[in-house]
Amino acid sequence: MNIAILLYDRLTALDAIGPYEVLSRLPGARLTFVAAQAGPVRTDNGMLSLLAECSIEEVDQPDIVLVPGGPGEVDARAGGPALEWLRRANDASTWTTSVCTGSLILAAAGLLEGRRATSHWLATERLRELGAEPVSERVVFDGKLVTAAGVSAGIDMALTLAARIAGDGVAQTIQLGIEYDPQPPFDAGSPAKAPAEIVAALRGRSRFS
Amino acid sequence: MNIAILLYDRLTALDAIGPYEVLSRLPGARLTFVAAQAGPVRTDNGMLSLLAECSIEEVDQPDIVLVPGGPGEVDARAGGPALEWLRRANDASTWTTSVCTGSLILAAAGLLEGRRATSHWLATERLRELGAEPVSERVVFDGKLVTAAGVSAGIDMALTLAARIAGDGVAQTIQLGIEYDPQPPFDAGSPAKAPAEIVAALRGRSRFS
Repeated sequence: MNIAILLYDRLTALDAIGPYEVLSRLPGARLTFVAAQAGPVRTDNGMLSLLAECSIEEVDQPDIVLVPGGPGEVDARAGGPALEWLRRANDASTWTTSVCTGSLILAAAGLLEGRRATSHWLATERLRELGAEPVSERVVFDGKLVTAAGVSAGIDMALTLAARIAGDGVAQTIQLGIEYDPQPPFDAGSPAKAPAEIVAALRGRSRFS
Repeated sequence: MNIAILLYDRLTALDAIGPYEVLSRLPGARLTFVAAQAGPVRTDNGMLSLLAECSIEEVDQPDIVLVPGGPGEVDARAGGPALEWLRRANDASTWTTSVCTGSLILAAAGLLEGRRATSHWLATERLRELGAEPVSERVVFDGKLVTAAGVSAGIDMALTLAARIAGDGVAQTIQLGIEYDPQPPFDAGSPAKAPAEIVAALRGRSRFS
């Protein structure tokens, strides 16, 4: 099974690495990080570079495509070879997936037209402008299009997808392998649960406000 | 605040990237990935390279040191400049931390002698052989030494640490920013909760058995 994760300038690292850590453990997985050009790709805060092993031209017809989010999605969805590649890859893929604002890139490529989809909680309404039907759920399946909410939701999406692909036992084995028994010190991970002033502060400084 | 994350050949990526995604969002954070030599560092499955921006020699006295785990920990704790650097870094650090089997590296450096610490569930007993007191908890503080359980536990550890450093509000803001409202599709993330046959299978093929 060939899995391609698309990297682009100013992506959010955990969007990509959460699902990578899960999907790379699927039996027979061959996972490749790709970008418009092979080489180092800088993340959103400038503190990390991930290496794209291959250019998108070198990776044809992956079974699973994953698009992470991050502030660089604005440039990524403005057009260019990555959008073209996503359309072609989606034609042949078994699953086309995103994490966080990666769904805005899928939508800009025309792949979420009329489909139920999610994104980072600050960005879900932007999906509507791009032709999708926004859903406030952590993981949304619509046919072979699978979208996850913000950043850390990619881990939940990937485990759910792993179960669909390889069965519950394999997904549970991966979950136990990465000891994913989450115990966050606060229950503040969604706008419905976080203190109102924190939700308001993040909304106030969001580029989606 | 200077944060250094130590990379080494065959680390587990999420061990490093989970805490990176949290700690890099602390006000004033300057986070650097370091390794024995600067340059690309290959992860455990060979499917990803993370770039170490600096060699350990270039990063002196970070306020926070983080050591991820992964199968490469065996070579990392066998000796060499990284262990020496960890000892020096710990002399000056405010917090010295690990995720997963990164705690075995801290122990091999002599930093967990007589201290309560945790590790990946398959490896906690190995801590005892290295002079620490193993604890089956997800995040363990003993003075300035902070250890997390396997792989994904680094996110919980980093949020807990963020709260200690910058207060609950900052940690909750980070949690909401990365939408960390975990909803794993199964409750199989610890050996106490996963199906017994899955626990047994992972034990059977573990290098710690």
